[in-house]
Amino acid sequence: MKEYTQRLEAIENYLLQWDFPLQPTTLYDPIRYFVRIGGKRIRPLFTILSAELFGVSMNQSLPGAAALELFHNFTLIHDDIMDNAPVRRGKPTVHEQWNTNVAILSGDVLMIHAFQALAHYDAATFKKLSTLLNKTAIEVCMGQQMDMDFETNAHVTEAEYIEMIRLKTSVLLGCSCAFGGFIAGVNGIEVDHLYGFGENLGIAFQIQDDILDAFGEAEKVGKQTGGDIINDKKTILYTTFQTTASTEEKKRFSELSLVKNEEKIKGIKALYQQSGVLAYCQQKQAEYTAKAMRHFEEIQCPYEKSQLLSLAEFITKRAY
Amino acid sequence: MKEYTQRLEAIENYLLQWDFPLQPTTLYDPIRYFVRIGGKRIRPLFTILSAELFGVSMNQSLPGAAALELFHNFTLIHDDIMDNAPVRRGKPTVHEQWNTNVAILSGDVLMIHAFQALAHYDAATFKKLSTLLNKTAIEVCMGQQMDMDFETNAHVTEAEYIEMIRLKTSVLLGCSCAFGGFIAGVNGIEVDHLYGFGENLGIAFQIQDDILDAFGEAEKVGKQTGGDIINDKKTILYTTFQTTASTEEKKRFSELSLVKNEEKIKGIKALYQQSGVLAYCQQKQAEYTAKAMRHFEEIQCPYEKSQLLSLAEFITKRAY
Repeated sequence: MKEYTQRLEAIENYLLQWDFPLQPTTLYDPIRYFVRIGGKRIRPLFTILSAELFGVSMNQSLPGAAALELFHNFTLIHDDIMDNAPVRRGKPTVHEQWNTNVAILSGDVLMIHAFQALAHYDAATFKKLSTLLNKTAIEVCMGQQMDMDFETNAHVTEAEYIEMIRLKTSVLLGCSCAFGGFIAGVNGIEVDHLYGFGENLGIAFQIQDDILDAFGEAEKVGKQTGGDIINDKKTILYTTFQTTASTEEKKRFSELSLVKNEEKIKGIKALYQQSGVLAYCQQKQAEYTAKAMRHFEEIQCPYEKSQLLSLAEFITKRAY
Repeated sequence: MKEYTQRLEAIENYLLQWDFPLQPTTLYDPIRYFVRIGGKRIRPLFTILSAELFGVSMNQSLPGAAALELFHNFTLIHDDIMDNAPVRRGKPTVHEQWNTNVAILSGDVLMIHAFQALAHYDAATFKKLSTLLNKTAIEVCMGQQMDMDFETNAHVTEAEYIEMIRLKTSVLLGCSCAFGGFIAGVNGIEVDHLYGFGENLGIAFQIQDDILDAFGEAEKVGKQTGGDIINDKKTILYTTFQTTASTEEKKRFSELSLVKNEEKIKGIKALYQQSGVLAYCQQKQAEYTAKAMRHFEEIQCPYEKSQLLSLAEFITKRAY
């Protein structure tokens, strides 16, 4: 991410200097805390790089970029309550550090500040950005609900799974890229391709994430792997296996539920490989990446696309 | 409210026919349930009547009016979680009927739908409405946080209390009236007076609410009275008393905390009357009503104001 250092610093400074009210402290201290915890800032970076394709400066793209990062942070604060997650990016989550009520209300007001950030733009651009963010925000909530519903749903199909990750993760990446186009004031076709690029990239990214959680090396992935297998999480590997495996393979899968964690991880990974599930999911990942790239190539713009392409590659080609 | 029957029916129909997605049912069933529980629909009624001052038809004011009612419903769903309230309008609250996670996420998405409703208007009007709703929504969250903070704050001043009810309740009434002006496309001065009218009316309404909870007759108020006294809620009566009462009166107040509920209500009401607290609060209520009326009189409009005035009177002159 070295080539983006300057832009990432600009995003960080812009967020740190955000003019959140000082009072009530119980409402805004958690927001300041959470925004400062950091994160990869992928979404605002996509907006900035997309706007640069059309020669738009960061001064002009930062308010829209920041709106998406604030919106993303709101979803994390509320998701952490719902997932009962104690830690986020190595720090206590808001509901852990304060309490659930504080996390609900701070999240609510943070979402509103995200929408408010768009007021930087003229009325016509403001309406385009707000309309897309509204649509996207609704879809993200739908995706989170589907994800929660999956926990108690024994049969999740591949199509349902892809739709869930599309809504929960990918539409916001699509929105981030489209924002760059709207801010640049380009026409609908360019914006559609930017959106399709981000959306399909997001799906490829999430599939990769599932694969890495099982098959990645802990040092390279940056977290302990195998967690999804231990928790029987309905990942793309899991749902593909449940749909395509033989009776014999499914029996072996059930048996592995009863053994120790380390053995379970090893056994299920072997099953995913032998049954062709891993190869199938890798192929799916490649398909969505290719789809994203087709949109990318279609974008007609006056400036070079190499930086945006590098970011896309960084995201989808993370090492095992 | 008879004179508003036609408009209230239009609001109800508009809300019932709202095009919420059908899926995921876990996300949208709670919203359909909650919106159908009903309510007085005061906020949309204010928008419609304010717009009528300038000859704007309901067709044109309903989307903005409905946005405010949906936003208000979102705040109720989340407030009910935070207040641990089991019942709302005689029905189980969303977190009781489903669970807390469902109530958080359904509330979130409902807020976004409220903002989305404004897309009905042209870009210039859309930006004005969105900007005011954003500002108002942030203030409502601040008010809710202040209200929660008061529970553990031994010394709440009158000014802090008034600021809390202004933020939690009144700004949304101000916004409702101002929406009518924005939708009608009138200039800033008229919108400011509409806002000032609604805002001050909201403060007067909330003070009246506090007084009625102690001194109203249960049948006329429509709920069991005395609840605030039993729960030591920091109402305007309570905060005024704590600031102005003599040592002797405060001693008597403390003694009454230890007696049975009925005796406590009777004793504290007597204290509020003898100490002049009731009269003081009634005077405050009258002051804010008068302030609202001064704004009302300043509104320059081509149509008659009698219907809007009747609604204001209905709200502030509820019988004891």
